[in-house]
This record gives sequence, C-alpha cells and structure tokens, in this order.
Amino acid sequence: MRNSKVVVVGTGFVGMSYAYAMVNQGTVEELVLLDIDKRKAEGEAMDLNHGLAFGPRKMSIKAGDYKDCKDAGLVVITAGVNQKEGETRIHLLKRNAEIIKTVVKNIMSSGFNGILLVASNPVDVLAYVAWKESGLHHSRVIGSGTSLDTARLRYEISQYIHIDSRNVHAYILGEHGDSEFVCWSNANVGAKPIADVIDSMDEISFEDLEHIYLKVRDAAYEIISRKKATYYGIGMALVRITAAIFNNENRILPISVLNNGVYDCEDQVYIGLPAVLNKDGVHHIVKLKLNEKENSQLNNSANILRKNLDDMSY
Amino acid sequence: MRNSKVVVVGTGFVGMSYAYAMVNQGTVEELVLLDIDKRKAEGEAMDLNHGLAFGPRKMSIKAGDYKDCKDAGLVVITAGVNQKEGETRIHLLKRNAEIIKTVVKNIMSSGFNGILLVASNPVDVLAYVAWKESGLHHSRVIGSGTSLDTARLRYEISQYIHIDSRNVHAYILGEHGDSEFVCWSNANVGAKPIADVIDSMDEISFEDLEHIYLKVRDAAYEIISRKKATYYGIGMALVRITAAIFNNENRILPISVLNNGVYDCEDQVYIGLPAVLNKDGVHHIVKLKLNEKENSQLNNSANILRKNLDDMSY
Amino acid sequence: MRNSKVVVVGTGFVGMSYAYAMVNQGTVEELVLLDIDKRKAEGEAMDLNHGLAFGPRKMSIKAGDYKDCKDAGLVVITAGVNQKEGETRIHLLKRNAEIIKTVVKNIMSSGFNGILLVASNPVDVLAYVAWKESGLHHSRVIGSGTSLDTARLRYEISQYIHIDSRNVHAYILGEHGDSEFVCWSNANVGAKPIADVIDSMDEISFEDLEHIYLKVRDAAYEIISRKKATYYGIGMALVRITAAIFNNENRILPISVLNNGVYDCEDQVYIGLPAVLNKDGVHHIVKLKLNEKENSQLNNSANILRKNLDDMSY
Amino acid sequence: MRNSKVVVVGTGFVGMSYAYAMVNQGTVEELVLLDIDKRKAEGEAMDLNHGLAFGPRKMSIKAGDYKDCKDAGLVVITAGVNQKEGETRIHLLKRNAEIIKTVVKNIMSSGFNGILLVASNPVDVLAYVAWKESGLHHSRVIGSGTSLDTARLRYEISQYIHIDSRNVHAYILGEHGDSEFVCWSNANVGAKPIADVIDSMDEISFEDLEHIYLKVRDAAYEIISRKKATYYGIGMALVRITAAIFNNENRILPISVLNNGVYDCEDQVYIGLPAVLNKDGVHHIVKLKLNEKENSQLNNSANILRKNLDDMSY
Repeated sequence: MRNSKVVVVGTGFVGMSYAYAMVNQGTVEELVLLDIDKRKAEGEAMDLNHGLAFGPRKMSIKAGDYKDCKDAGLVVITAGVNQKEGETRIHLLKRNAEIIKTVVKNIMSSGFNGILLVASNPVDVLAYVAWKESGLHHSRVIGSGTSLDTARLRYEISQYIHIDSRNVHAYILGEHGDSEFVCWSNANVGAKPIADVIDSMDEISFEDLEHIYLKVRDAAYEIISRKKATYYGIGMALVRITAAIFNNENRILPISVLNNGVYDCEDQVYIGLPAVLNKDGVHHIVKLKLNEKENSQLNNSANILRKNLDDMSY
Repeated sequence: MRNSKVVVVGTGFVGMSYAYAMVNQGTVEELVLLDIDKRKAEGEAMDLNHGLAFGPRKMSIKAGDYKDCKDAGLVVITAGVNQKEGETRIHLLKRNAEIIKTVVKNIMSSGFNGILLVASNPVDVLAYVAWKESGLHHSRVIGSGTSLDTARLRYEISQYIHIDSRNVHAYILGEHGDSEFVCWSNANVGAKPIADVIDSMDEISFEDLEHIYLKVRDAAYEIISRKKATYYGIGMALVRITAAIFNNENRILPISVLNNGVYDCEDQVYIGLPAVLNKDGVHHIVKLKLNEKENSQLNNSANILRKNLDDMSY
Repeated sequence: MRNSKVVVVGTGFVGMSYAYAMVNQGTVEELVLLDIDKRKAEGEAMDLNHGLAFGPRKMSIKAGDYKDCKDAGLVVITAGVNQKEGETRIHLLKRNAEIIKTVVKNIMSSGFNGILLVASNPVDVLAYVAWKESGLHHSRVIGSGTSLDTARLRYEISQYIHIDSRNVHAYILGEHGDSEFVCWSNANVGAKPIADVIDSMDEISFEDLEHIYLKVRDAAYEIISRKKATYYGIGMALVRITAAIFNNENRILPISVLNNGVYDCEDQVYIGLPAVLNKDGVHHIVKLKLNEKENSQLNNSANILRKNLDDMSY
Repeated sequence: MRNSKVVVVGTGFVGMSYAYAMVNQGTVEELVLLDIDKRKAEGEAMDLNHGLAFGPRKMSIKAGDYKDCKDAGLVVITAGVNQKEGETRIHLLKRNAEIIKTVVKNIMSSGFNGILLVASNPVDVLAYVAWKESGLHHSRVIGSGTSLDTARLRYEISQYIHIDSRNVHAYILGEHGDSEFVCWSNANVGAKPIADVIDSMDEISFEDLEHIYLKVRDAAYEIISRKKATYYGIGMALVRITAAIFNNENRILPISVLNNGVYDCEDQVYIGLPAVLNKDGVHHIVKLKLNEKENSQLNNSANILRKNLDDMSY
C-alpha cells in the first residue's frame, strides 16, 4: 500500500472542508496543507490539530510545501481563482489552467509518484490539463467530476420516495456543469429499476424526474445564492474518493476520467463517467448502455469540453 | 425514538456473534442477554463488558430476564434446538415452534411494545409463528430472511468481477433454505444491469451466474462441514437490520415479512422479500417485477412455507 | 432517551463546523439549522444534505425555526456579534447578552425541555445569562468552557512527548479566556503524573510546561492572525459534548458549569470545571484537589467572571 | 507504513473473536487465517467474508499458509493446547512452548519482517519464547500481557463510580496470571488521582479497591465457570493493540514486553508493563514510580516468570 499521506493544495473552503471531514472520519494517517499563503495553511493546521483529541484516529497534520508531495499517496488540488468583474469565461479558464500548470509542475518536481485528484473548477478541463502537464498515466489523474452531482441526485430521489439515499443507485454523467445529465436508463432503487419504482409508487411520476434533474443541475446556484459558495458536499465527496483509493476498494464512483475510447464520444476529454477506483487509481471505466438521448447528451458534453480544451490549445 | 435497548433471547453462537458485533460497532445503548442458562448469559455479559473500554461507544450490557423486554425497542430471538439423531424434520420444526411460542409469550407478558426480529431457523416459519403468537401488527415482526444469503451473493459476485460488494445490488428472495432464488432480473453492479455487466466483462459469463447461485445456496453446508456452524455472517446481518431500525433509515433489506398480497403468491406466509425498514419496523414491501421463472420460484418457495405451517396447524 | 435531535442556533463558522462534523461522524438523527438569515440556513442545510450519501449514517437535516426546539434533546447556541471598531469590551458583552437573552426566550417559548449548550463568547458569562433566562435547572445549561483549550493542551503536550493525545489527561480550568490555567497538579500521561513524566524524559522539562500553557492560552490569537477566526477545533469539541449527552456516557469533560459551592471560589458563576455529562446534563462536578497556586488562579478567574456579570446586573 | 496485512495463527475462539472484531471495526486491509486444520480456517474465512457487505470497510479475508507472513505487518499468534487430565502445569507449558517454537520458525522462514504479537497463554512466557526463537529485535515482539486485565479493571472501577470506563486510567501490571497487581499509586479518574476520588465519593472506599482487584484477577475463572472460555474481551484488546500499531499511534498500552532493565526487577522476562506502541512496535516502556508494595509485587511476578523460563531452559 502507498503511504496514507495526503497533500491538499489550496486551503480555501473546498480544500478545508475536505481536510476537516478527513479529520472527523479519520481517513488517513498524514495530512499536509499547502497554500501560497503559508501562514493561512499554518493557521488551518493548528485549528484542525486542536480537534484531533476528539477525532476517531491519531493523525499527523501540518502546513507544508511541495517537497511533501514526494511520498504522498494522493495529492488533491483545490486551488484556483474566481471570475473578476468583466472577465470572460475563457479568460478565467486560462488563468486557472495556468495555476494548475504551475501547481502540477511543482508537485511533479518533488518526485511525486502517487495519484492526482483535481477538484478545482471547471474540473473536467483542469483535470485534463493536470494529466497532460503531469506526464502521469491517465489512470493516476482524476477529477471529482460528477461525484457531488450524483450525491445530490441520490439525495433528491431519496427525498421523493422516502428511501435511504444509500439505496439509490444512479449517476449524473458528463461535464460537471450545465450539460451534465442523469443516466435514467441505468438508475435503480435497491435493485429495482427507477421506471418500475415510478410505476409502483404514488409519490413519484415521470415528470418528477425532470424536476429532480433540474434541482440537481441548479443546486450549486441555489446554494451560492444563499451562502455564497458550496463546499461541504464536495468535501465529503472528495473523502469518499480518497477512501476508495487508500482502502483499495474497487469502488465504482462517477468521477472525471479520460474517456479514451470507452464511450462512443470525443476521445480526448476528461469527463464524468463511472469508474472503478482502487489504490492504483482508475482500474477501468464502467461502460453503461446509454439510450439514444443519453448518448447524444454525452456527446454534447464531451464536445463542449473538447471545445474548451481546444480554446486553450490543449 | 424508541429506547435504543435490545434484548437478545438465546446466547448461542448466533446470538453472541450478533451481540459482539454490536459492541464492536456501538450500535445501541443497552444490550440485555437472556438465556435459559442464566449463568451462561452472565458469563457472556462479563466477557463483552471487558471489551467495552476498547469499543467505539459506552454501552450498558447485562444478563437479564423477560421483564427487560418491557421498554426494549427490539427483541431478537435466536433461541432454538438442533436436530436429534433420527428426528424427522417436521418433529424438529414442532419442537422449535414450541420454543418460539413460549419465548414470545414471555416477551409479550412483559408489556413489550417494540419490534420483534426472529433469527432462529427455519426462520420464515418461526417468524410467522412469532407473529401469530405475539398479536403484534405484522409490520412489527420480522425474520432475518434472506439477508445473509443476499450478503453471500453480493460477496460472490464481487469476487468474480473484482468490484466492491457494496456496489453489488441484488437479492436472494424466497425461503431462507433450499428453494431460495436470485432475482437476476433486478440485479445491478453500480447502476448497471447484471446482464450488461456480463456482456461487457470477460471475467464473467451467464453460466457463472448459476454457479454463483449454487455457491450461495450451499454456503451454509460448506461452512458447517468446515467449522460445524455458521454465525459471523448472520451476526453482522442482524446488526445491519438493527441499525436500519434504530437509525430510522428507511433502508431496503431482504428480510422475512408477511407477504400479505404484495407479491403474486401464497398470502399467509413470512418469506424473504425486499422491505423498507425504519423505526416502526416494515414501512412497506418493495415490489420487484419478477420474470416468469422468478415468479414460479417465488410461488414454489411460498408453497413450501405454507405447507410447513399447515403441518403445524398455523 | 431523549430524541437525538439537535437544533443549532447560528450558522456562522462555529455553528456550521459543528454541524458538518456531526454529519461526518453521524452523531445524531436530526439536525435543525436556525439563523436570523433563514436563507443562509437553507443553503447550509442543502450543502450538508448533499454530503449525506457519503456519511456514516442516515440523518435528517433542515433549516428550521424556534418551534423545532420543542422536542429537541439539545439546543446549541453559537449566535453572537463581533466587536465594532471603537466598541468597548463591556458594550460588546451587553450586546451579546441581549442576543442570548432573546435566543433563549425564543427557545423556551417552544416548550423546550432538553439541554442547552452555549458556545457563543464570552462563553462563561453567556452560559450564565442563558441559565438565568431559561429558568432551567443548572444541570441542564452548560457552556463549551475550556473543552477546546483542554484539547489544545493535550495536543501540545502530545507534541512534546510524542505520545498520542488520547493518552494525555489534563485540564485547562477557569475562564475560557486570558485568566484560564492548567491544573498541572492533576495532569497525567497514561496513568503517570506529569511531574514523573518530566523527571523521566529528556524531551520535556518544567520550563516547557509554562511554554505549553502560553501556547494554549494564545492559540486562538495565533490562529486568528493567520485565518481570521477559529472554528474547526471548537466544532469537534462541541460534537464530543453532544455525544457524551446522547450516548449517556457519564464522561468527564471540562465545560462551563455553575460552580454552586463545589469549588472554593465565587459561587454564582459559570466557569470551566471538569463535569460528568450524561443524558440529563451535568451529573456532578468533579472536585480536584488544587494546589495553592491553582486555587488562587481559579479564584482570580471566578472573580473576573463575577465582575463581568455584575457589570451587566446579572 | 507497513502493509496493513495481518496473519492470525490459530482459529480457535480467541483468534476468531479477534478476526471478527477486526471485520466489524474495519481495522486493516488484509486478514489471513492460518490453522493446522486448514479446512477450519477456510470455513472461518467464508463466514467472515459473508459479513463484509455489512462492515465499515472493504477487506480481503482468506485462509492462508505461512508464506502469507512474508509481507504481513503483523502476525498474531493465538495457537496453543489445553491442559490434559493429570498433566502438570510445567508439562503443559513445555508443550505450548514447543508449539510456539514451531509456529515462530515457520513464520520467520517466510521472510517475515513485521511485528509479532503473542496471545497464547501463559502469554508472558510464550512471548519470551517467541522473541528468542524469532531472532527479531525485542521491540518487535510483544504479548497481549495485562491489556485485557486492565480493561477489566477499568470496567470494574467504572461500575463503582458510574463514570465512563474511557475516563478511568489505571493499569494491571506484572504477570498475566495470579501474581498480577493493580498499580494504584498511578491510577486516575479523569485526571484525578484515585485516592482523591475515594476521598470525595461516597460510592467507593479503600476497601473496595481490594475487592475490585480480586474481581479482576478472578474474572477469567468466573467467566470460564459460566461459559467455559473467555474470548470476546481479549479479542477487542488485540484489536486495540493492532490499531495502535497500524495507525502509528504512539499509544500507551499495558502489554507484555522485555523488561530489559527499565523496571527494577528481573531483567530477562517478558512481563506486563505500560509501553508506547507505534508502527515499529514498542517505542519505549513507560516507567511508573511504583510504591514499595507495588515494587515487591512486580519483583514477585518477574521472579515467577523467570522461574518458568528457567524450568524450560530459556
């Protein structure tokens, strides 16, 4: 097994919600926080360390630098900047790509040989950039993809039908963004297809499915309009991905991976697909049979992502 | 919420493996052990109490008597006798039914008003007996049913395809016994139908499914031939059912419930079906669309169970 | 047992770090978030709910109002305002006391009959105000007191001697503030008195103890200078207190309680002392034998707190 | 970090209670069961595997052979035989020493380079034998020692004073057997010395301490008279030791270690003493200041153990 040591690059709300969840769940042995504002990272490490006596497990937590990546099993990138007033989307994208490029270069020059998990947005594009810049095999570079969107979907379905969200098995696929879609043709509650669930329950109808999709797609906007940012859900999604890796779980999670010919759409994109994760990263992508509509939705998503990459000459 | 107090009737291997797992997982606040051999129960309580300092949660554990059922949220019945040499199956069944009858009478006379979980075998028949004798609503009396068989199924599939068993969603239904069957038509890995999994993976073929079914069906025999009894798996299955109740989870679990017209087979039997469990017991039975073969397998199972009950005039 | 339902009043960083830690640890069944900015509370509930699918336990989380306190087992008050420029300390105190007064009045008018935990600062003064305004028995009103300071102490000692902080048993007592002090005369590592530890280890000397005390006392300032606020450590401390209550642990924790004659100092103050916590709140205060210096430190702390209360006519 | 792989030698009640607790707590990634009755080990692995779907973590569990020790981080020896009728204690001891000798030889010839934990009784004598036969550094060979006795002590004290056993800090030291003793001079509740606890509480008096010691010393007999053997408590104690190692905790636990001059008694014995455990085994033995009586009790214990070893020419 790799060292259960994680380096978090970026101690903004997402990075720290991830780190704090790790401390509460006791997921790994070592946690290193990295930020261009080193003093910020130090303060965060102190705050987390004070909680350790109440946590489930002894951990080592500190503020560090890129040299700490050398023997880390996982580096999670949450760094990035926000849109300036009047800035175009593509200009913002380029700025964030530059950041990721620098971050990845710094990580790799430490001698890093673990798994790279990108959470910065737009996650699919930046995961691709991270992969290209790292020189690592694509099975070792992933993005958080639609893991959070999928959790939101499971929660919303669960609310409709009053069944534990851990019994809801369905994925949001595609771009982590507006073109994402629900793969309803492969959605189940318990082991029961969602179409049968709708047939047999008064609580839910086919119209509700579209409503659920819209709620999920717009969840980030709804939260941001209320609390300015969204970070707790993604924090726990990143912990789940981390546990799948360090516990060598062979667990299926919808994350951003290089399609590379598995699905019948644009090849050279990172995009949200169900993948089997273990200590070596992506073991394989799970190929679902999509219906025609879903297939076209996936193609649309992949084309949008490729266009973004083209715009940045990747 | 009901008191998170559980009374275990019977401190044999199954009862104690359940109790020990509860201590290790910290599932409830109070645990009372009951046995006709009161000193045995005392010894078991002492042994468990000594582990408490290493457990995740403070618990109160003691040997008790039927009066302890009065304010218990759950009573788990694991009592029963084994086959004597030369004894017919039906004679054994009658002896065990008498035991359950007595146990349930004692439980009810305490003023018990919680949920009754039967784990004694043959579990479907004895759960029915417990229901009849208790006078409780059928949503409050359940049997462990095919929960363990289902766990075995998930483990075996997981071994074939090298995917975490928590991603395998499939049920064994029917009698907890030789007539049980896999509901392959509602079986998924992640959200992907098992038929598609077989299509896309070299590791597994349709012939393997039959092989997996046989392995699951015969698992108990295989274990018994090696270690004389089987109790760890069922112990953890009972903890899962317990957590679904006390955490009010609305979780779907394949347990023994009164069919009562939900599935198209004999009505007046307790039989393994997927049911939604919460603090009030069975919220509802999940009706899966069975294919013709599965439907006939379920009917066969139900008829066998009814025949057993008829033989005992229930 | 009381309903394992918690209402959090105030969704600032402390309130939310507490709530998020609860979701990660699965401490209770129901969590209600309350804020004067109702939309903020809604956004926070959404963000937490999206993490549920990755949590250890099914929970119900929502934004609510004071009516939700009616059947809550615990209400945690984290509301409060910060110092305005040029505002005197006593003026700020009065403003926060007014807020607590209003919050407590609203809580009590719901018919609330659980336990009240105050985390707003200055916590000892405000816990006293909450007690007086609630009309509840003093065993049912507590403040977070020196629980976090104690965790910091354990962490710092642990760092010096390279022993797990869960083996460090020592308390910070007195005011949660500058007059707090370490009760070194009752401090142990494993079961070994700290004085013996110092004798036998090269890593630590008596001078280090004073250094450790200063580090702990000034930890909040150090963190605030780096990240503007401190909230993760206190979030986990509050979860520990919550678990002690709902799991009926009879656990000793250093929290703010009404002295009421137990220690030989001012009687009518809430102050940080070790207390045994269970489902009914404070079972009793643990009376440590203090040495002369510690006794005078405690008196000093208590007098400061009484003076603050006097200034506000409490 | 070493591979979180554990090999259990011996699948009797102690070995299996340990293994089952590990599955319930999800302590390590890999678990290998070894028994001279290979089919027994297979049956046990099957039974445990069926519980995995209900456990907190994906694990790999199998029946194996000594080759599996090669890359194991920890091997736990629970093998041993029981007294035959008319057999002398020393004859039994020699038989068990022979077994340990063979087992250790087999383990070492795999190329094993991890930590060896002996749980077979008499544990102190057999841990010494294992150390000698292994050729490993003494920091890498430990026995379960008085860890369980200590847990019993904490439970009994906890029962008297109605405080959570996790707040009771006190050790049983010496031989795991009749000559063991409580180190009352270094015993605390919370951070409060037990002498002060007795002074301030009506529930407990100095006479009770002797009563508690006798209860703890005789606990095994009491349990055995009721259920023939004792295994759950020790199972969880072994898990605690295992977690301290794999989580690299630097946790103090009372285990059997080579005294080697740390305490003022016979040098060349393995005996129950508080030791700091981490991934490399014993970091150091914690030297408590014993009072005169305790010192003489320790010497007595050590002499008994040396005598046993002498009798076997170790």
